[in-house]
Amino acid sequence: MSRPIAVLGGTGPEGFGLALRWARAGETVIIGSRNAQRAQEAAAKIKDKIGPQANVWGEENASACAGTDLVVLTVPFEGHAQLLKQLKPVFRSGTIVMDATVPLAASVGGRASRTLGVWQGSAAQETAELVPNGVRVVAAFQNVSAELLNEDGPVECDVLVCSDDPGAAQVARALAARIPGVRPLDGGKLENARILEQITALLIGLNIRNKAHTGIRITGLPEAAYR
Amino acid sequence: MSRPIAVLGGTGPEGFGLALRWARAGETVIIGSRNAQRAQEAAAKIKDKIGPQANVWGEENASACAGTDLVVLTVPFEGHAQLLKQLKPVFRSGTIVMDATVPLAASVGGRASRTLGVWQGSAAQETAELVPNGVRVVAAFQNVSAELLNEDGPVECDVLVCSDDPGAAQVARALAARIPGVRPLDGGKLENARILEQITALLIGLNIRNKAHTGIRITGLPEAAYR
Repeated sequence: MSRPIAVLGGTGPEGFGLALRWARAGETVIIGSRNAQRAQEAAAKIKDKIGPQANVWGEENASACAGTDLVVLTVPFEGHAQLLKQLKPVFRSGTIVMDATVPLAASVGGRASRTLGVWQGSAAQETAELVPNGVRVVAAFQNVSAELLNEDGPVECDVLVCSDDPGAAQVARALAARIPGVRPLDGGKLENARILEQITALLIGLNIRNKAHTGIRITGLPEAAYR
Repeated sequence: MSRPIAVLGGTGPEGFGLALRWARAGETVIIGSRNAQRAQEAAAKIKDKIGPQANVWGEENASACAGTDLVVLTVPFEGHAQLLKQLKPVFRSGTIVMDATVPLAASVGGRASRTLGVWQGSAAQETAELVPNGVRVVAAFQNVSAELLNEDGPVECDVLVCSDDPGAAQVARALAARIPGVRPLDGGKLENARILEQITALLIGLNIRNKAHTGIRITGLPEAAYR
């Protein structure tokens, strides 16, 4: 059995979509939520969709995090720092935290097509500051449409993975590649997370103007870049 | 004859590539440069490439700007504000300024895969502050590879156009569409230029890591979005 992926905020559309896709690909998934019952209901919904063989269950966020060393953050920015402080005592050393959070201005009543400035440079860099030493932070999955993840077709989007830890980035790219249509790419150091986060705001604007579910592709790369 | 497009900084690789593509598409192009002779040499090089029928000539930047109401800025960021101050007295009212400038940290000795923070939000918004009233500012062409523009094949890149002036944005999108392979898109208000500028830094990082000439495509949009 693969090591479980804890998707914190997994009852929201982005987290639920990622959990669904990974469970469908045969990964073991723990849905995390502030509310354990809602997490269990989301897990049951995934089993309904893909069958009882799915390795998925739900737990409260901290408990889900404690159960693995592979964690994905898909919480709204307004709950981001608070959740990380709550998780501090339960993180295992060596845990990989894949942060998909985007600091949308909607978090403070503004527009979803704008981002907030984060002092550290990006939500993912804030995460790097708030996790204990030994926890490995990766920025990824910000640009993947929640709507497309929750449908059945391929997701036409490149997932750029930014991290200062090459091994952790490799794990995130391998998980990205489990989603049909997604191509994983090395997006450079964690500091580049600020660009991924802002691209989401641009895509949301395009979605609104065109009533669409957009993604991005990078052109001009050799096949060897996607691994 | 179409109204001339003045490409300021047109002796540099991005400006020269745009000028080449537009001249090849039958547009009238004025190459602008700090040095009139270098501008004339660049224009001669374009005629060598595509034939004597090309409507292209070279002038000093301010003189090139004075000769039309359609201007493209492709200067390095370190010369950006200075050029705009120089152009202030020569801009015609109603001129459309399409700004392709990216505030790369390389401008102050840093990396080309990082941007500088610009107080106004982006280089294009700085432009909006520095031009006289009545000049219409558009952000576009930041993400188009200079190398690909200077080759003969199609340029696999979507050009997102950001502006607060819908008519000016429409003109810029029409010019983008003259470049084979390029698809023009409405990128929203001028404030979104900051995202386009940062995407260039991301693409430069990808280029360096993969020895490639990258671009971006937006996925998930209906055909009607590209116009």
